[in-house]
Amino acid sequence: MPAEKPPFSRFEYGRRLDKVRAAMAERGIDVLFVEDPSNMAWLTGYDGWSFYVHQGVIVFHDVDPAWWGRSQDANGAVRTVWMEDEHVIGYADNYVQSSVRHPMQDLAARLRDRGFGNKRIGLELENYYFSAKAYLVLNDELPDAKLVDATALVNWQRAAKSAEEVAFMRKAARIAEKVIDGIVARVEPGLRKNDLVAEIFADAIRGAGDDWGDYAAIVPLMASGADASAPHLTWDGRPFKKGEATFFEIAGCYRRYHTPFCRTVFLGTPPQDMLDAEKALVEGLEAGLDAARPGNPASAVARALFGSLEKAGIRKEGRCGYPIGLSYPPDWGERTISFRKDDETILEPGMTFHFMPGLWMKDWGLEITESILIGESGPAECLCDRPRKLFVKD
Amino acid sequence: MPAEKPPFSRFEYGRRLDKVRAAMAERGIDVLFVEDPSNMAWLTGYDGWSFYVHQGVIVFHDVDPAWWGRSQDANGAVRTVWMEDEHVIGYADNYVQSSVRHPMQDLAARLRDRGFGNKRIGLELENYYFSAKAYLVLNDELPDAKLVDATALVNWQRAAKSAEEVAFMRKAARIAEKVIDGIVARVEPGLRKNDLVAEIFADAIRGAGDDWGDYAAIVPLMASGADASAPHLTWDGRPFKKGEATFFEIAGCYRRYHTPFCRTVFLGTPPQDMLDAEKALVEGLEAGLDAARPGNPASAVARALFGSLEKAGIRKEGRCGYPIGLSYPPDWGERTISFRKDDETILEPGMTFHFMPGLWMKDWGLEITESILIGESGPAECLCDRPRKLFVKD
Repeated sequence: MPAEKPPFSRFEYGRRLDKVRAAMAERGIDVLFVEDPSNMAWLTGYDGWSFYVHQGVIVFHDVDPAWWGRSQDANGAVRTVWMEDEHVIGYADNYVQSSVRHPMQDLAARLRDRGFGNKRIGLELENYYFSAKAYLVLNDELPDAKLVDATALVNWQRAAKSAEEVAFMRKAARIAEKVIDGIVARVEPGLRKNDLVAEIFADAIRGAGDDWGDYAAIVPLMASGADASAPHLTWDGRPFKKGEATFFEIAGCYRRYHTPFCRTVFLGTPPQDMLDAEKALVEGLEAGLDAARPGNPASAVARALFGSLEKAGIRKEGRCGYPIGLSYPPDWGERTISFRKDDETILEPGMTFHFMPGLWMKDWGLEITESILIGESGPAECLCDRPRKLFVKD
Repeated sequence: MPAEKPPFSRFEYGRRLDKVRAAMAERGIDVLFVEDPSNMAWLTGYDGWSFYVHQGVIVFHDVDPAWWGRSQDANGAVRTVWMEDEHVIGYADNYVQSSVRHPMQDLAARLRDRGFGNKRIGLELENYYFSAKAYLVLNDELPDAKLVDATALVNWQRAAKSAEEVAFMRKAARIAEKVIDGIVARVEPGLRKNDLVAEIFADAIRGAGDDWGDYAAIVPLMASGADASAPHLTWDGRPFKKGEATFFEIAGCYRRYHTPFCRTVFLGTPPQDMLDAEKALVEGLEAGLDAARPGNPASAVARALFGSLEKAGIRKEGRCGYPIGLSYPPDWGERTISFRKDDETILEPGMTFHFMPGLWMKDWGLEITESILIGESGPAECLCDRPRKLFVKD
């Protein structure tokens, strides 16, 4: 039993478990092994930086789920999950990063003991942390079982958020606004980039009022000038320079729930082509927000954005948004729906996305984004409330 | 070609590549695919937060390695790797987190095109980010190839550090000392835990002097009181309390090189059993440092430590140290050697470890650790220089 109140009500965890069991039944899955730390936390409340070793949640149809992991981390599970202590299973430490033993040998034995040796076992085959070796060991150890690909089965159940979850994301949005305000106030020529990052982390983790900040699943990204043609470079100790734009890609995080938010700051006078792109991008965001209505497909948002950009001569392909919520490193996306021209998933009330049309051009980059909530009707609601523009500091 | 000077000399990258190719030859591996971001950076200089999508470095015997990844991240590769631009290969964005396409289809085609369709291909089967699905897709797409388990092949080459690498870890050690100093100065009853974490991040990222701080591969861990029985819980917004010990597990990080360092602070008067444990732990660390000599097995360090602890009635099993250096989330260990009773790997000059004998007892925890460098002779050198004790603030 948890030492502290878990983040959500028992009713909420029950709702989640019901959805997952229904999806398992639909796919004929007798037992599901979930290694994704976000899915583990969403189902059980488990929270700890232990996902660098094999661990998971085992979901049964008829009894409460079991947390399974390294024995020393079982102490952390007992303190954070809503299930009774007998649903916490630790494996011996000599399985950890061993070249002769593998933790999946322990998991296979537990599954056999519970009668699943010849059943249909769901696995997250495309997932961080569930390694190729983990699959091969399970396959060897469970020759009579049928291993079924259950990639993103849980992630899909997470798409539409409950009111309790949305309340967390609104708290995260207040933190994100504070971080962006701090950036815009502080950035100036000559400031070392890492010194600004230090303030960003401090603002994010102090949080907003009583709502303490958690670590985001991605570190702040902030490429400047020509480096901003690359979306995922991190900082260094060079100073900000006059005549350059820097995009700031950050998220507020409250109890593992993320609200990402990006703005770009130009130090000096922006060139005309960047201002033209800003105008097209802001129009594209507005068009996309208007298209992000319940009943519309995800593709409608992408088409609305790309249409506005194309009018300004900017051809963009690829993804311009992804679902957000509870996450652990290395990604704050949920890896299900994409705002893409060919994703026909229908938007539903309660879904939350990072509408993220980054422009990574040949010698500069521009990011102006919104985290959004699909409403009961009408255009999407933006979770953060800050001017949708290129900030210019002269 | 890189936009900035890569962190290491061409000579150093050449040394690394030679070692990896020799290990490949020994195992009969014709071409090696490396997805571990730490191994990618160690071989090529690539640095970016893009490891949440499939990417890797392809190591050939006869030509320079190729960086392979998402097309939008190819811009980041061109700016950071030492190879010429034609050695940077991007795959199309519609492979990313798609349910119908997989990036490994692209990789398989590239390998077939280069004549490796029927060769021995090395893969890091036990690794974060190289998913079970990635393996299964490659296996389908390359039916005539022999997929060989090359788990940790590169990691093993990283064990003994060059002088250039040790210099980075010394810079990281200065940052770690600064962080611990800041913690000891600031922690007091009533301070919210997240407010201290905010200062820890700020200190770590400001760095030490001109040496800017990079993000560590693990966030600060700091459980208090009975929660400290669990090693991997993260922070929340509750205040520090009088009468409790808190362990602080942090690392300084300089250009992805880590020097972890842990100290524990007791607010008030520690109970006698904790003071007894401190004494045994400090003696055990001293015994372990003395055993950490070149030519000794890794197990000698564990035995020296456990022997001292047992004299004080503390039985500890499991791992009490691991190799450190260049890392990306979720782990700052190198996942090769362990300080364990049954690890007979011989210690060599230049190897670096986090000697980490955490005591996670029933209702408290104590961590006093050292990051160490195996010397040319004699006991190991501690990279950080701070009192090896339980800090008490009354």
